[in-house]
Amino acid sequence: MNKEKIEKSENKCELQKILDIIGGKWSMSIIYALIFGKRRFKELERLIPGISTRMLVKELKNMEENDIVIREAFATVPPTVEYSLTPKGRKLEPIINELYKWGIEYGITEN
Amino acid sequence: MNKEKIEKSENKCELQKILDIIGGKWSMSIIYALIFGKRRFKELERLIPGISTRMLVKELKNMEENDIVIREAFATVPPTVEYSLTPKGRKLEPIINELYKWGIEYGITEN
Repeated sequence: MNKEKIEKSENKCELQKILDIIGGKWSMSIIYALIFGKRRFKELERLIPGISTRMLVKELKNMEENDIVIREAFATVPPTVEYSLTPKGRKLEPIINELYKWGIEYGITEN
Repeated sequence: MNKEKIEKSENKCELQKILDIIGGKWSMSIIYALIFGKRRFKELERLIPGISTRMLVKELKNMEENDIVIREAFATVPPTVEYSLTPKGRKLEPIINELYKWGIEYGITEN
């Protein structure tokens, strides 16, 4: 491998670290659902068609561990759990918006 | 559901259509590997650590069908196959670069 290739190969590994955190298709959907503010678990479930309860639990846990979302539990009856974006998670908003614009430009999504 | 929620729910479905195309973690890695120009299949395989041959074939086929990459086959001995980004695929470059910057900012990746 020449120098350029070695550099690219190393960069590639670096990109993979990011995609391990937010590369799954559900992570971005969850971030998108939280852009306008806090959401309860049940709301998120409704806002993300196709996700199973188990998968949503798992994704939110991963995202909490990676400091993308904050989980707040309230001692109400019944107990309430709310999720919101951390500043780190919020920084992904323009990236998701750009993806969205790309989708509109190429007729994948509707405006 | 109130109006805002219905709107978000619809937007969500639209985002999902995009993520179905490029939301898998390998798609973005493949686009990233093609940013600097054409690559042969074997080069892509080397540049994307962790991807299996079978998965790379499958992803490239999907991306070709979705007009993200172009596949060119040359009648050399042995036959050569080269992949490159379409204009549609190339438009994703700034988005991937933003993701990369985000990763650097939060110490996920190294500069």
